Amino acid sequence: MVDDSIRKEINKIKPYVPGKSAKEVEIELNVQGVIKLASNENPLGPSPKAQELIKKRLKDVNVYPDQTSIELREALSGKLGVDKDCIIIGNGSDEIMQLAAATFLSAGEDSLISENTFSTYEFCTRLFDGNPVFIPQKDFKYDLDGFASKMTEKTKLVWLCNPNNPTGTAFSQKELEAFLAKIPKNVIVVIDEAYGEYVETEDFPKSVDFVKQGRNVIVLRTFSKIYGLAGLRIGYGIAKQDIIKYLNLTKLPFNVNRLALAGAIAGLEDKEFVEKSKKMVSEGKKYLYSELDQLKLKYQKTEANFIFVDVNRNTDKVFVEMMKKGVIIRPLSSFGFGEAIRVTVGTKEQNSRLIEALKAVLGK
Amino acid sequence: MVDDSIRKEINKIKPYVPGKSAKEVEIELNVQGVIKLASNENPLGPSPKAQELIKKRLKDVNVYPDQTSIELREALSGKLGVDKDCIIIGNGSDEIMQLAAATFLSAGEDSLISENTFSTYEFCTRLFDGNPVFIPQKDFKYDLDGFASKMTEKTKLVWLCNPNNPTGTAFSQKELEAFLAKIPKNVIVVIDEAYGEYVETEDFPKSVDFVKQGRNVIVLRTFSKIYGLAGLRIGYGIAKQDIIKYLNLTKLPFNVNRLALAGAIAGLEDKEFVEKSKKMVSEGKKYLYSELDQLKLKYQKTEANFIFVDVNRNTDKVFVEMMKKGVIIRPLSSFGFGEAIRVTVGTKEQNSRLIEALKAVLGK
Repeated sequence: MVDDSIRKEINKIKPYVPGKSAKEVEIELNVQGVIKLASNENPLGPSPKAQELIKKRLKDVNVYPDQTSIELREALSGKLGVDKDCIIIGNGSDEIMQLAAATFLSAGEDSLISENTFSTYEFCTRLFDGNPVFIPQKDFKYDLDGFASKMTEKTKLVWLCNPNNPTGTAFSQKELEAFLAKIPKNVIVVIDEAYGEYVETEDFPKSVDFVKQGRNVIVLRTFSKIYGLAGLRIGYGIAKQDIIKYLNLTKLPFNVNRLALAGAIAGLEDKEFVEKSKKMVSEGKKYLYSELDQLKLKYQKTEANFIFVDVNRNTDKVFVEMMKKGVIIRPLSSFGFGEAIRVTVGTKEQNSRLIEALKAVLGK
Repeated sequence: MVDDSIRKEINKIKPYVPGKSAKEVEIELNVQGVIKLASNENPLGPSPKAQELIKKRLKDVNVYPDQTSIELREALSGKLGVDKDCIIIGNGSDEIMQLAAATFLSAGEDSLISENTFSTYEFCTRLFDGNPVFIPQKDFKYDLDGFASKMTEKTKLVWLCNPNNPTGTAFSQKELEAFLAKIPKNVIVVIDEAYGEYVETEDFPKSVDFVKQGRNVIVLRTFSKIYGLAGLRIGYGIAKQDIIKYLNLTKLPFNVNRLALAGAIAGLEDKEFVEKSKKMVSEGKKYLYSELDQLKLKYQKTEANFIFVDVNRNTDKVFVEMMKKGVIIRPLSSFGFGEAIRVTVGTKEQNSRLIEALKAVLGK
């Protein structure tokens, strides 16, 4: 047994609860044609332009990747209007969350985290022996005043998920501005915008502007969602040069693989695919809202490609019953919601299958 | 400035010194047909079988990878004769080094590291606020007695690189056995065998047997070297189930990308490619030994796909001069050798270009 040898902090880490793959469910439950609406992936597949460039560069994967990811940083720099040295590329944006904790969070310092949000903020905090301080949500939304009220001298990191996973709600430019105005200078604010490209509301924060103003913020984006590259692991962070310099110091040299870089570089230019994905989600949301209304189910209006639905009964049971109907959804018990599910907005066909399965399982 | 906000440990981390890419050198120095013999990549390219399966699975990269990498672990389990739960897959084996430090190294505990070896052991130690204790080498070889003599109650991790990067020397089964017999029960030994598949000496340790015996060892292997997949980032660790369980707790859920998994699964079965690569290195070593003898240059007999050469003059200057001749080698100043270089054994043609360039640069 090695139990006595491990770092004591490790015992506080909760294992990540993964989604099930369609193939696993087909085999385990002997169901055909299973669809997965559990992990907010893009059902249109990977961007076709991304696939093309990946194929072209496949022959070079015997060579280590460029550890500075300069080609992608330059492409992003043009797109975002920030210097290339204000960008860092990660093996998924979750890797950059870990770098942020490694860089800024000393043992015993506080990290402010919302309740009912993405679990990796707590993971990264515990990994570096930080102290997670949880702030309850208000009406399924981040309570930024609540965050401000918990700020002490021990506070080092603040984690904001916008739009929030799993409720789909977003705070506005004004709310973020007001919040940032209250923050001590030594505090670093991570703003995770994994679903940012799907946002439709017009008062969504222009968070990159805060980077340009020299604020202590790290904005995170990903190629896993609208670009359809979740399986390749690539995301990025935007922050002032000072911050990026330190984040780079804490990363393993060859963190991002060559084919992910190729996919991201080409995907970024695939406007047609991005527009198509956006339209699919925008229309899918409307369809699902109207169906959920008819089923008299409570849900949250979403700024992302998923919808939070209150099923008013044990979410884990609903999860299993839905799987038997060939639809994998996300039960939200691990997010602190015992009676809610998160469903990815899929294709037209997937959305109707979702509604049919919900009707059957909930007896509507 | 954020300098006051960072963890104080971060200031001790030395930035990784990367190799230069052939393309960079061609542009910067205006040289044509540059070859890179600096990063111990496989010049035969990625395994053809790996490329095939990657192409086939490309269409699925919109879906997150299996966070347990079960398909590859099962393939490796059959190959290695260890349970699949004794294997962990990493985003390169360097990620598993980081997990080992995250799992076992508490702040202030000692980590024993050889001088003149791979720099990531020190990086991982510092990242978790451990205390690196350096053990000098003897005749360009790991001094395991030296390691044993530095063992105290504060020792938690031991890092062994076998064959050693950059000297190419290896310690034997007997030497490792004797060393492990002396180690306190709470100490974890990481044995990095990144170049293990190239080893020719018959007394190389059967390190997986130590895992089977329930010892506190973590054996690391990679697909970056003989399988030609450095650009995809995939390696693995073998250890008893207890250890793997904890390592898994400290990893980000989706650390390994789908195409790396596909490449590794197919590459593992590409015996023809592996044999061809082995033969190329074995023949290339002999050719290079005889040429280096003729040039009266001291070198170390190698068990890897690279050779450590004493150039008897400033290594950084030799590096620049060699680049001008179109050959990128690795100057070893960052490894603590001011007058030595490391050259990857390449194809026949690359090896003669290397020798020609060396002759010209060293005035032989």
